[in-house]
Amino acid sequence: MAQAIARRHTLSNVIHRQVKPSAAIPCPVRTAAPVIPSHDRSSVIVNYQVDSASETHRAAVSKLLARRGWAVPAPKQKLTNWSYTVGEIGQHEVDIRVTHNGLCHTDMHMRDNDWGISGFPFIPGHEVVGEVVAVGSQVTGLRPGDRAGVGWISDSCRCCANCKRGEENLCEKGYTGLTVAGNHGGFQDICRVNADFAYTIPDGLDSASAAPLLCAGITVYAPLRAHIKHPNTHVAVMGVGGLGHLALQFARKMGAEVTAISGRPDKEAETKSMGAHNFMIFGRDNDKFKGKFDILINTASSDVSISQLMSLLKVDGSLIQVGIPGGGAVMQVPLQDLVFNQKKVVGSIVGGRADMQEMLNFAAVHDVKPLVELWPLSKVNEAMQHVADGKARYRVVLTSDWQ
Amino acid sequence: MAQAIARRHTLSNVIHRQVKPSAAIPCPVRTAAPVIPSHDRSSVIVNYQVDSASETHRAAVSKLLARRGWAVPAPKQKLTNWSYTVGEIGQHEVDIRVTHNGLCHTDMHMRDNDWGISGFPFIPGHEVVGEVVAVGSQVTGLRPGDRAGVGWISDSCRCCANCKRGEENLCEKGYTGLTVAGNHGGFQDICRVNADFAYTIPDGLDSASAAPLLCAGITVYAPLRAHIKHPNTHVAVMGVGGLGHLALQFARKMGAEVTAISGRPDKEAETKSMGAHNFMIFGRDNDKFKGKFDILINTASSDVSISQLMSLLKVDGSLIQVGIPGGGAVMQVPLQDLVFNQKKVVGSIVGGRADMQEMLNFAAVHDVKPLVELWPLSKVNEAMQHVADGKARYRVVLTSDWQ
Repeated sequence: MAQAIARRHTLSNVIHRQVKPSAAIPCPVRTAAPVIPSHDRSSVIVNYQVDSASETHRAAVSKLLARRGWAVPAPKQKLTNWSYTVGEIGQHEVDIRVTHNGLCHTDMHMRDNDWGISGFPFIPGHEVVGEVVAVGSQVTGLRPGDRAGVGWISDSCRCCANCKRGEENLCEKGYTGLTVAGNHGGFQDICRVNADFAYTIPDGLDSASAAPLLCAGITVYAPLRAHIKHPNTHVAVMGVGGLGHLALQFARKMGAEVTAISGRPDKEAETKSMGAHNFMIFGRDNDKFKGKFDILINTASSDVSISQLMSLLKVDGSLIQVGIPGGGAVMQVPLQDLVFNQKKVVGSIVGGRADMQEMLNFAAVHDVKPLVELWPLSKVNEAMQHVADGKARYRVVLTSDWQ
Repeated sequence: MAQAIARRHTLSNVIHRQVKPSAAIPCPVRTAAPVIPSHDRSSVIVNYQVDSASETHRAAVSKLLARRGWAVPAPKQKLTNWSYTVGEIGQHEVDIRVTHNGLCHTDMHMRDNDWGISGFPFIPGHEVVGEVVAVGSQVTGLRPGDRAGVGWISDSCRCCANCKRGEENLCEKGYTGLTVAGNHGGFQDICRVNADFAYTIPDGLDSASAAPLLCAGITVYAPLRAHIKHPNTHVAVMGVGGLGHLALQFARKMGAEVTAISGRPDKEAETKSMGAHNFMIFGRDNDKFKGKFDILINTASSDVSISQLMSLLKVDGSLIQVGIPGGGAVMQVPLQDLVFNQKKVVGSIVGGRADMQEMLNFAAVHDVKPLVELWPLSKVNEAMQHVADGKARYRVVLTSDWQ
């Protein structure tokens, strides 16, 4: 089970809903559009110096600057050291000297071009934490020296109703900006991003803990926030992996009664240390927990019986799907159970900017922390294999070790 | 399409979730439990007289009283004239002299014992409207002379959280009382029911219009009420039949933008007269309406492609299922669309007492009226065939014609 969970396609293994070039967006974008410059894929190295302690650095850099990263040179290839250059910082951009990267299955899917949207060479990494070292002239929310984080989404249309409500994950235009699709992610020394999609890391949250929250964390936080309506809601978490172990903590800290569901009896003590009140072995204990849960968040692989999961819900309960299998997977939803018992099967996809910052603040205040294994960034290929083998407990974080 | 819709199993074609005898309920019931007396199935006729104008009649009847009804003598048999007796009225009961009955597919399913829960002989009818002619000593909400209505649910456990919130349709014990399963329904002269599940028919609503609202109406009102969150929500109604033509009216009057979806081009003018702003031919117009709807309430038969319906939803949209096919029907829900676009597939089952009374009041104030065909109750068998043939436009109402 654990291996299956570890290999699952997480919510963050997201092929964008639609990738459209900015030019295709029919509605107006901001005057100073935060366009991430096209990468000069030659390897011209230019000396790059910044003074992280000085605010006077703003927009002072006008020449090409070198960036070093661990890039995928071609589909299914190992990552290699690679350099490229960027130009002058945009008015709404920030440069972040990266210290930590969460490693997500999506990075491997992008490496292998599983979804056909990867450009090569490109630098993966979309759970990025580091220190702001430069800000564009119009940036007001971040200053050099701040710690900042970046997640899956790097921009949105800004004009649809959902974007206006801070629900950029639901942008009606599809994703107009993704951190690693068409852009370079966090496996580099200094990452340039749109300041509107860079989040303040609160003081109470260390950087290694913050990184996995930026994708795995928001993936479970947002649906729990949306569907937990009152104290003592009974929440079950199916699957104890990268997402599940965070969902257990968030749900408990949100005031829910929490049940961990796993296929492995040896998980009981660990899940209870993460906040679970109850532990259930899927299959063996189904009768005992039948009709018990208001919410069941399924972080496990897609081959779990949906009808069995639904049978664990109370009347009016919700099954939340955050995992996405490949291809045209179809859920087999029993209609009688759905209608007679007024149940709900709902999808959830990461979260918008408002939820993201709230989630980070919540984690800091309530001490929600992923269990992480620290690997040096220079060992990224070995770390990827470790994750692919289902050995990560529960999230690998790559620490920058540039010389 | 229209025939298919007319023949569909409506939400109200509800086999109870669980039928449990009262004795099996582990939690306390009210001291004066509103138990409907067991029927004396002999045909002793006792003269029965009441004075509908006098409140002094309360609980004055102490002898066996005769009731005449159109009963199903045995599975799959035509209804015949039949009599039985009842005893003294219970403290929480009311006797309603029935004037109108909506005719629902469920009545035919119960007649044919399709769900194995019918007792014979029994009297169908669960969209009942009439005049209160007697009330038990503890009844405060209704008085003789009032018009009252009765729907699918005739009792609930009263002690679970959902019952306490007025959501008896979601009673955690399952349905503990149904108007036609284990009891006699409205196809009789005087129907005795639990006063707590008898609803006041507002003055602005005529009895023929009120009857179908008590099952078909609440079936679409409750989910629209729950899922319409703001003005101008775009609601689509799939299927223009007994439920659909009410959903169009309710959604319009709730302030939604409304689109009717049908397979028949000749429905356009009629649906627009019912409140639809837009009309869509399913199949032909799918591309035009792709991604347009916040809510799609599916009142059509189950063989409609769920993935096609879901493709019509906006990001974060909800597909509401109110129809139930027979057997172990399974919905084929495309997982990627569900998760990437954060869509929801939700079931809905009639409504609780609070919603029921609100719905009747709403219909009166906003002039929501079913299109009905009036048939005399004595022609119930012919009317049932008419409905089974898919010829009803859109709901048959049986008017009492006792001599």
